[in-house]
Amino acid sequence: MKNIKNMDDFNEFVKKIQKENFYREPIAWGFCRSEKGRVEANRTLSASFAVVNYKENNGSAAVILWALNEYATKKSQTLDVGGSELVFTLNEKVLDKIIKVFEFLIDETGGEKHRNLQNLLIMKEVIEASSEFEDDPNHEFRVAFMFADELAKSVEVAYLKLYLLSLNKVAIRSLNLNGIFALLPNLAWDEYSKPFELQWLRENEIWLKMNGIYPKISSVDKFPRYLSHVIPADNVRILDDAKVRMGASLGAGTTIMPGASYVNFNSGTTGGAMVEGRISSSVIVGEGTDIGGGASILGVLSGTNGNPISIGKRCLLGANSVTGIPLGDDCIVDGGIAILEGTKVFISEKERANLAKVNADFKFDREIYKGLELAGLNGLHFRQNSQNGQITASLSKRAIKLNEDLH
Amino acid sequence: MKNIKNMDDFNEFVKKIQKENFYREPIAWGFCRSEKGRVEANRTLSASFAVVNYKENNGSAAVILWALNEYATKKSQTLDVGGSELVFTLNEKVLDKIIKVFEFLIDETGGEKHRNLQNLLIMKEVIEASSEFEDDPNHEFRVAFMFADELAKSVEVAYLKLYLLSLNKVAIRSLNLNGIFALLPNLAWDEYSKPFELQWLRENEIWLKMNGIYPKISSVDKFPRYLSHVIPADNVRILDDAKVRMGASLGAGTTIMPGASYVNFNSGTTGGAMVEGRISSSVIVGEGTDIGGGASILGVLSGTNGNPISIGKRCLLGANSVTGIPLGDDCIVDGGIAILEGTKVFISEKERANLAKVNADFKFDREIYKGLELAGLNGLHFRQNSQNGQITASLSKRAIKLNEDLH
Amino acid sequence: MKNIKNMDDFNEFVKKIQKENFYREPIAWGFCRSEKGRVEANRTLSASFAVVNYKENNGSAAVILWALNEYATKKSQTLDVGGSELVFTLNEKVLDKIIKVFEFLIDETGGEKHRNLQNLLIMKEVIEASSEFEDDPNHEFRVAFMFADELAKSVEVAYLKLYLLSLNKVAIRSLNLNGIFALLPNLAWDEYSKPFELQWLRENEIWLKMNGIYPKISSVDKFPRYLSHVIPADNVRILDDAKVRMGASLGAGTTIMPGASYVNFNSGTTGGAMVEGRISSSVIVGEGTDIGGGASILGVLSGTNGNPISIGKRCLLGANSVTGIPLGDDCIVDGGIAILEGTKVFISEKERANLAKVNADFKFDREIYKGLELAGLNGLHFRQNSQNGQITASLSKRAIKLNEDLH
Repeated sequence: MKNIKNMDDFNEFVKKIQKENFYREPIAWGFCRSEKGRVEANRTLSASFAVVNYKENNGSAAVILWALNEYATKKSQTLDVGGSELVFTLNEKVLDKIIKVFEFLIDETGGEKHRNLQNLLIMKEVIEASSEFEDDPNHEFRVAFMFADELAKSVEVAYLKLYLLSLNKVAIRSLNLNGIFALLPNLAWDEYSKPFELQWLRENEIWLKMNGIYPKISSVDKFPRYLSHVIPADNVRILDDAKVRMGASLGAGTTIMPGASYVNFNSGTTGGAMVEGRISSSVIVGEGTDIGGGASILGVLSGTNGNPISIGKRCLLGANSVTGIPLGDDCIVDGGIAILEGTKVFISEKERANLAKVNADFKFDREIYKGLELAGLNGLHFRQNSQNGQITASLSKRAIKLNEDLH
Repeated sequence: MKNIKNMDDFNEFVKKIQKENFYREPIAWGFCRSEKGRVEANRTLSASFAVVNYKENNGSAAVILWALNEYATKKSQTLDVGGSELVFTLNEKVLDKIIKVFEFLIDETGGEKHRNLQNLLIMKEVIEASSEFEDDPNHEFRVAFMFADELAKSVEVAYLKLYLLSLNKVAIRSLNLNGIFALLPNLAWDEYSKPFELQWLRENEIWLKMNGIYPKISSVDKFPRYLSHVIPADNVRILDDAKVRMGASLGAGTTIMPGASYVNFNSGTTGGAMVEGRISSSVIVGEGTDIGGGASILGVLSGTNGNPISIGKRCLLGANSVTGIPLGDDCIVDGGIAILEGTKVFISEKERANLAKVNADFKFDREIYKGLELAGLNGLHFRQNSQNGQITASLSKRAIKLNEDLH
Repeated sequence: MKNIKNMDDFNEFVKKIQKENFYREPIAWGFCRSEKGRVEANRTLSASFAVVNYKENNGSAAVILWALNEYATKKSQTLDVGGSELVFTLNEKVLDKIIKVFEFLIDETGGEKHRNLQNLLIMKEVIEASSEFEDDPNHEFRVAFMFADELAKSVEVAYLKLYLLSLNKVAIRSLNLNGIFALLPNLAWDEYSKPFELQWLRENEIWLKMNGIYPKISSVDKFPRYLSHVIPADNVRILDDAKVRMGASLGAGTTIMPGASYVNFNSGTTGGAMVEGRISSSVIVGEGTDIGGGASILGVLSGTNGNPISIGKRCLLGANSVTGIPLGDDCIVDGGIAILEGTKVFISEKERANLAKVNADFKFDREIYKGLELAGLNGLHFRQNSQNGQITASLSKRAIKLNEDLH
């Protein structure tokens, strides 16, 4: 490597690297702090990323792969980028090698500029400080590359995928998350969101309890909480961090109330939404939709026969309603009723005509439909007749308004 | 100011002040610790009050206004009490000036006696200590006066209003809370209930995460939690602090279970109540009432067309029921059913006669009523006939018992 | 006492003790760290046990009683084991006396071996350290014996009972928990699960708030949280510690989701179960059962007329359903419906025949049954006809599968 003095030098160097065998274009990559086990010191418990690169900053990725390859070569090893992912521990030597390439940028680094370089410099600073004090051997700095969206093999890449979802860099349901439950260890998370192996707690229980310093365990789970890793948009509100799992995706303007709500990983909202109910894994909720208190939207693992549910825009799921089918825009499910795949729904002749206006492609040809047959239609208002118990659908006033606006 | 040696001197001094232009009788006032922004150092993020004065201790208020005016005059400014509120930062000089007036009381201060004076002395102590160490510049001590219950202009007065509600000093719905969402900044609250600007977290994310000290964010909200500011009565139980927002009001003997419950600001209970469901903003629940697991009471912003709901005494809202109308005393809504404004309810001739006994002013003149028409009646038992789906109302056994007791 | 050099000496010594008046065989016993009041210094607020002995290690119990008796005798007192329980404070002298007996085992102590001895040694270590520093006078080490399962008289024995339940050492509903609400003080628990008297917070409110160190109160309750005392099995997940009260019992493989779930004390699961709903006090849930989002199972204090509910194996309680009767195995309650003791349920002739196959002892002799009449039957699938509102029961597909497997 020749001395890199400016962007031209840098770009030339990158181009050279990108022709090498040890280079492969990553889909996503980032530096992370991996928390290691106390019982199993070689096991990664969790990983914190501050900067996540998704289809961007490939030049920096190239430089890092070059440095890793140099390091491997010195140890008579080869850097293998043939797998779907690569995770490499960053010691001071590797960090120095990488930072040297970026030295010409250090003066202009800060704020939103060169955040990967900021990350590099801070990792170096932490390593220098900790080598003096040896205060916490329970972590390592690493770099994680995802080259192909296959089954994650490392905790780091599993976290990288959860970050891609929670940072809204990829769409809900667009990543391969198979095997993630098997991969992530089940951990106790304390009052600072630090992970502990349950076995470590067992081994130290007497000492911790008799000293009065047994940690407050906030959760025992394979996943951390969204707010322990993600800084939401300024207009997002999450009134209880327990309610949103890491890997959830929240659109700007979304509010998660603390009553009966929950947003699982690989699910969420795509715009501003009021959430007082449950958004199960795989569920997508559209902008302007209101999930009422205690309303449940079923996930692929609970009652939908594997059909993931999308809820459209401006829908209202009433308090304590249950929705087991996908809905289009401007739909209403009245409070307290359940619309499942098999629920028989009556639609009067008049309402069939009304609904046809906002669902041009659907053939309303009879009185009774199963819930699943109505999947994805717009403007449905599901209600139960309080005098005879009949579940009906009619054109919702929300859709009527929109409909009239079009005239 | 002459030397104040006893209560007579003090009262005379206060009377003199109260004739001055810089005096105005406050509705409420108190000292607070204002937490300031780290990004915007002049912005108040939140305010903690330990002693809140509501239509009381006007003499002390007078002395404080006098001291503030003296301070302002020295700076060739005028103290303006013409607005609806006044918030003033307390530096050591102002504190000394105020404390000097109360010096004759210091010896008898402590416990429940002279709590405002205790507050003054402790603020002075903290300022003295921190001027030595400069350890936390992120706060200021302030005094906040609310002269008129208008739109709050400062975070301090907004908090003062929330305290008035949560300390049960004013009735739910009795304060002007307009504009409070626009006024309060949306913040990340950490494991110690300390507020952080989301922007500050963004600016420090890399450093915090790589050092392993990224805070556990417990919530992101404009409001703090009730239990971070309010010490409830000895017989109040709140099993999860996330469930009660600051500004809620809980009657002595109330229990808030952690399942699906929630109590929003400007809502709550007026006596002992069991709460396992949702009390939306503006809802008032009477003594002896049981809000079953997951039961929802709708708020003015969600399904009641702006009509705030009061629930009477000794009511039972069954598990997963939804109540969208006000109820009188001794009512029952069966588990799993929804009584909304438009729900048609059948009442038999016999039950109309029974209900008339406890609702003398209501004219039961037909079989079917809309939910809203029954608003506020006593002794209603709403149920759904499990063989034909019909929603009915009848006289509840609870009301029968009370009714018989009157014979 | 002669010098104990090996297990033979030890056993001989124990046999001798067991003939003494001061010995009584305990049902359960353990060492604990008792947190004492700050306002009432003699009051135990809570107690942490690291090792709980249930019908085991009676030899060790004997030695401890012997040491306590020696200590009492020296003070011209008598050790009274005639009551249902005994709680004794362990000072350094008593600890030394006990440890001396076990000295021959110290070398092989560690890991899972001799955990009571480990506990003794660590208590001694803590006492030695704290007598130097006097840093926290708010605790005492104690030993608690439960000789008979009667009304608990001490906070320590009340906690011992909660531990027995939460460590799955005794069956749910098998212990006498009468009076536990009256016995346990209502406390504020901070971000570290440390208990505070509400009165102490009141007395220190000004100082704490003005210094910016008012604790984050996580809950105000008589009970602590399960996860503050219990390390669950490796495959148990509890996504929010607020959701499980100390005294709950969770079978291996149980997952408690954070939406609308809750598990009260003296209730829980006996095997792997998915819990997204409420398990009220006294409710027992069988292995393989799925409690859907927001589903409520009523407790003895809320709607079951004092009949505790057991739910069998492989049941499915749909989202937002309400179950007020016991269920056998392989039952389904559809989402959104309520089956209470008085709910009338229609069963067709064909389904009566089907259900009879898995409920040989039950006489299906008519069309309509009250919910309570169907209590405990297997294979019931409760649903509501969405066209006429009728609640029906039929043979569940889950039971059909099992039924066919038997052919």
